[in-house]
Amino acid sequence: MFTGLCAFPLTPMDEFGTDDRAYSGLIERLINAKVDSICVLGSTGNYAYLPREERARLVKLAVEVAGTLPVMTSVGALRTREILLAADDAQQAGAQALLLAPVSYQKLTEEEVFTLYETVSRAVSVPICVYENPGVTHFDFSDALYARLAELPAIQSIKLAGGYPDRERCIDRIAALRASLPERISLGISGDAFAVPALLAGCDSWYSVVGGLFPQLAMTLATQALNGQRERALTSNQALDPLWRLFGKYGSLRVVASAAVALNLVQEDCLPLPLALPDRQARNEIEQVITQLALA
Amino acid sequence: MFTGLCAFPLTPMDEFGTDDRAYSGLIERLINAKVDSICVLGSTGNYAYLPREERARLVKLAVEVAGTLPVMTSVGALRTREILLAADDAQQAGAQALLLAPVSYQKLTEEEVFTLYETVSRAVSVPICVYENPGVTHFDFSDALYARLAELPAIQSIKLAGGYPDRERCIDRIAALRASLPERISLGISGDAFAVPALLAGCDSWYSVVGGLFPQLAMTLATQALNGQRERALTSNQALDPLWRLFGKYGSLRVVASAAVALNLVQEDCLPLPLALPDRQARNEIEQVITQLALA
Repeated sequence: MFTGLCAFPLTPMDEFGTDDRAYSGLIERLINAKVDSICVLGSTGNYAYLPREERARLVKLAVEVAGTLPVMTSVGALRTREILLAADDAQQAGAQALLLAPVSYQKLTEEEVFTLYETVSRAVSVPICVYENPGVTHFDFSDALYARLAELPAIQSIKLAGGYPDRERCIDRIAALRASLPERISLGISGDAFAVPALLAGCDSWYSVVGGLFPQLAMTLATQALNGQRERALTSNQALDPLWRLFGKYGSLRVVASAAVALNLVQEDCLPLPLALPDRQARNEIEQVITQLALA
Repeated sequence: MFTGLCAFPLTPMDEFGTDDRAYSGLIERLINAKVDSICVLGSTGNYAYLPREERARLVKLAVEVAGTLPVMTSVGALRTREILLAADDAQQAGAQALLLAPVSYQKLTEEEVFTLYETVSRAVSVPICVYENPGVTHFDFSDALYARLAELPAIQSIKLAGGYPDRERCIDRIAALRASLPERISLGISGDAFAVPALLAGCDSWYSVVGGLFPQLAMTLATQALNGQRERALTSNQALDPLWRLFGKYGSLRVVASAAVALNLVQEDCLPLPLALPDRQARNEIEQVITQLALA
């Protein structure tokens, strides 16, 4: 579950519900590309915007469609009690791993976050991946907190924020965490632009947004980097610079959603308001880049 | 509604529900202190952690208890559709104003935020207070966005984040916004430590956390500052420095919750997990300060 390419598909939705057919279609593309695992209802899958019942239903649907492909799902929520219910739902639906970010409204303390993971760890029977994403959770994990979390048997992977705290220190941090954390803890990288350098620096897994829509592309990069084909992987990655720049400019969610619309994989209304696709000019820019990179 | 002291009470809750008796008791203290208005289910009232039904019930209860005292309530949520439902509920419950923060998981764009306020403005018949709180919403309002929002008739107040972007520029910003925005837009300040300087600089209202628990204290400060008793207000404010330092150290919510427990106004379990009261040492520190300031 926690090695190789884990692809994060969109959950197309409008104000009235989710588009289950388009959602299943996106998952089928991932099966066909032979990704190593998928994570439905990640940040890219807009888990935070969906009520409990819809989340439970969508995980069940993903497990049915995915067949033997391992499925992870996010169980993050503002309250511990909601997280515990989402974890129950996800396990009953057949999810093989749970992704948990310290979602917050009021900024959380280190002790609150540790207690949260400890509580959830004790309540579940499938492994947990700790989800670091300061851009949305506004919580910074210290190395000391990771060391404490790594002692909880349910915790088996950490999804690190790519390029955090900056490009250079991100790579140093991977080396330092790899040296200090037990071998059994898989280190994964998100923030697609940083995936290749991170995999070359020792990460075991790529938790990938782009892989959720363009799985072949992500598989190529992941395979090259994980096989230690350093120069080749770096060259492949550099070719994607125009895409990574769009991610930085509009946010990866808006870019992959715009691309999915352009490819007729999802309907125009695919994000939950107030989130919206960028304006026409930006979408033209996105369409040009996916054409230029032969992704269309 | 949008002038003077608006007090923000806690909503005591544990994992099983809210403590309605303690909640009503906190509101009664505010009536007795003759505050100008109250805002139930503000950030201090943990609105973000409560499901729709509980929010609707608590606003109704507040309006009943408050009698002739004007009641505002927060209608913030991650999705526009939830905000519209919360606004309907709040109006039906008798709320006289709606507080709306651009709550986010994915970082919002300026255009998304404008569209959100425009949509809600069109749907409501009571005034809206725009809620700036980058610490929890991670959105920065530009002066240009405020100018656009001020053209929406429903928007009648802006709740500015005190000390933002820093102590000095916060004061300059109040002067600049006061000069550029129409007179009909009330400017209010939150971030209690910055209230006195902000009121002296021209803010019309103090949206106050401390006022939700110690309304007499806040009324004294607000009255001095709004009556232009500059030196007196600044001296009163300086005396509260130990309290403002605790707010900075532990977060105002954890400090007022700890104080409310110490005063036997709420039960020990009063915050929604993963949020928790600080450790025993911090709580002793908080209790010492409220005793020292004769607030106990």
